[in-house]
Amino acid sequence: VNRRILTTDVASRFAGIVGPQGVVLDPAGMAPYLKDWRGKFLGSAVAVFRPASTAEAASVVRLARGLGLAIVPQGGNTGLAGGAIPDRSTQQIVVAFERMNRIRDLDVVDNVIIAEAGCILRTAQDRAAEAGRLLPVSIASEGSAHIGGIVATNAGGVNVLRYGTTRQLVLGVEVVLPSGEVLDRLTRLRRDNAGYDLKQLFIGCEGTLGLITAASLRLFPRVTQSATALVQVAQLSAVLELFVLLNEQLGDFLSSFELISAHAYRATVAQLGDTQWPFRDGWAVLIELGVSSPACNLQQALEIALEGALEREIALDVVIAQNIAQARALWRVRESLSEGERALGPSIKHDVSVPVSRTVKLIDNAERGLASRFPGVRLNIFGHVGDGNIHLNVIHTTQQAADDPSFDLVAEEGGVSPQSMG
Amino acid sequence: VNRRILTTDVASRFAGIVGPQGVVLDPAGMAPYLKDWRGKFLGSAVAVFRPASTAEAASVVRLARGLGLAIVPQGGNTGLAGGAIPDRSTQQIVVAFERMNRIRDLDVVDNVIIAEAGCILRTAQDRAAEAGRLLPVSIASEGSAHIGGIVATNAGGVNVLRYGTTRQLVLGVEVVLPSGEVLDRLTRLRRDNAGYDLKQLFIGCEGTLGLITAASLRLFPRVTQSATALVQVAQLSAVLELFVLLNEQLGDFLSSFELISAHAYRATVAQLGDTQWPFRDGWAVLIELGVSSPACNLQQALEIALEGALEREIALDVVIAQNIAQARALWRVRESLSEGERALGPSIKHDVSVPVSRTVKLIDNAERGLASRFPGVRLNIFGHVGDGNIHLNVIHTTQQAADDPSFDLVAEEGGVSPQSMG
Repeated sequence: VNRRILTTDVASRFAGIVGPQGVVLDPAGMAPYLKDWRGKFLGSAVAVFRPASTAEAASVVRLARGLGLAIVPQGGNTGLAGGAIPDRSTQQIVVAFERMNRIRDLDVVDNVIIAEAGCILRTAQDRAAEAGRLLPVSIASEGSAHIGGIVATNAGGVNVLRYGTTRQLVLGVEVVLPSGEVLDRLTRLRRDNAGYDLKQLFIGCEGTLGLITAASLRLFPRVTQSATALVQVAQLSAVLELFVLLNEQLGDFLSSFELISAHAYRATVAQLGDTQWPFRDGWAVLIELGVSSPACNLQQALEIALEGALEREIALDVVIAQNIAQARALWRVRESLSEGERALGPSIKHDVSVPVSRTVKLIDNAERGLASRFPGVRLNIFGHVGDGNIHLNVIHTTQQAADDPSFDLVAEEGGVSPQSMG
Repeated sequence: VNRRILTTDVASRFAGIVGPQGVVLDPAGMAPYLKDWRGKFLGSAVAVFRPASTAEAASVVRLARGLGLAIVPQGGNTGLAGGAIPDRSTQQIVVAFERMNRIRDLDVVDNVIIAEAGCILRTAQDRAAEAGRLLPVSIASEGSAHIGGIVATNAGGVNVLRYGTTRQLVLGVEVVLPSGEVLDRLTRLRRDNAGYDLKQLFIGCEGTLGLITAASLRLFPRVTQSATALVQVAQLSAVLELFVLLNEQLGDFLSSFELISAHAYRATVAQLGDTQWPFRDGWAVLIELGVSSPACNLQQALEIALEGALEREIALDVVIAQNIAQARALWRVRESLSEGERALGPSIKHDVSVPVSRTVKLIDNAERGLASRFPGVRLNIFGHVGDGNIHLNVIHTTQQAADDPSFDLVAEEGGVSPQSMG
């Protein structure tokens, strides 16, 4: 099987399914689907198909199956691990979902949104907000990422601490199976004990078990009041003391607890050009609290909690945003850390998870281990320490780093390294 | 295979695994394991084995497998559907977990409790509370139910609305597979994207895929302030209006939203003998709010919200608990509804789930459909309307009810009936 398989006859059979708009065969048209946004992965494909409905997607799968063509589903193509890019064999087709972008339903009694795979995450978030609800999955690429990709990768992001990963938001899925059959489990039930929960296999499957064509997702009360602070901790280990203190006083409202090093912050601010790092060298935590009710005074509660952290010398210094503009400025730096890192040099990115209690030890060991083994190499570390998900990125100047020991370090702390990539 | 298989030799091989305390062979000793607490299901067994460790449980499975004996795992034997009771073939053994009752770990940084299958739910709840944390799964039988049974049945309860079913609390499981191998996935990771999430298959599997021997469960901030109210609604359909109103004003704190009919309440109060139904005939909702922070005034917020419901004529009358004793009295009635029902006559119990938005229609159709088809029959309806889980119980005086149409009614509303039983 190779490109030649798409004889005029076969191409017209595909076009008969998805219409002329749904078939991309020319190299220029296919190019954006064959490269990830970092430019690290470059593949080739027999064709790109853009179904406009679940029925069309199922027909594409059946025809591709008959022809022996492998299928690579692609959402917003915002992934960092190359999972949406075909290989270089020209034995694969890409199925892209941008034409399946409807929001099929939003219900404020059921607190559910049912969106097609190609719906952009921000579009779904906005629709939820208009209805006075929150779709809590929030990632830096939310302006491009698709709902299908979010579900297929079990996306995390800055709200995992409070709302869980995407898995915990999914009530149901609609999937085209490799056979071409459609599995319709777009339930909106909150409690569903009828048999095994098979939809869980598709969440996080990266498309390997089927094409996710739609999902029903839980909605939450909209956040109407928030509080944001950047806290410099006395030393790295104080991060966990601060976490426990905030959990005990404000745990219901804590949605983000993000670790940032002075080093990573400065590299980012140099790129952004308009914000100063307010602290000395060392580590800081960006904290976000939110609540949907006027019955609470979050700003005051955060001030009280952080005064306690200063008194107990867990915190060295504190910046509490006094208005939305200040909060946005803090978050802008957090969301730009990946871009800031780019200026530091080539990097090997590790997106790893360990138990929260082991994050400090992981970082300590990584810094010590890497420094001794690879003198020319530096670490750039940040991430969602409140849910144990750390970006442990190696800035390298030599090829030595290719066999860096990070995987072993993560395993030692009982963690996983699912999405590391060169 | 029958009881005779347990020759002295075989019995002593089992005793060699679990010790003499771990083998129950005499009819009197086995009797409690062969009957559910309602007395509806009565089985027989070759033997009851009570392993004291995962290794012992695995050895029992291997030996039973070699002998061709089927295994029925049993937790606290509090189920209403007979799933923990062997059949009458005397071809099965019961594996009971009461000797595996350790809490292996509790970590306030990771916010996790790791408990063995035989640990009583209330023991785990208490341990969490001592550490300043909340294990939110809460069911009427929590003083006897085991952690293993909670996970194996994906138990719901009165906190599903806020915290989800047990599935959403499970971070990891340890399972003895049918092969006798031990699958150790007792992770405490908040984000785990390394491969398919196979543990989900065991949650809610009712023991069919393996013996759950331990589980790691998420903990939440302890509730330090709560508010409780009983609200009579103008008519059944106003239940959903009240739900939306409370969700929008107090959704972050709403943990229970329980439907109770005057009919069910009176039957229960007659049993308890010390509480009056404060309202006219019709429907009421029991509301519970909770928060872990002193930064909120829940009592006041609830009063404001319910004043709004009275003004908009969603609510006809309101009782707000002024202290813990009053709140407990309201909850005592809710928790005794099943006992109250017993006095009404024999019943067919349906524990069904539909989307929240369809609960009212389901109840309307059930009342109308049943009344027309079975004149002698009455419904007793209550349940967790906030998560769509309704107890739709048929009090029957005739055998007609055996083919009652409830299943069809549930399916019409997009729901499931996993645990109906005569």
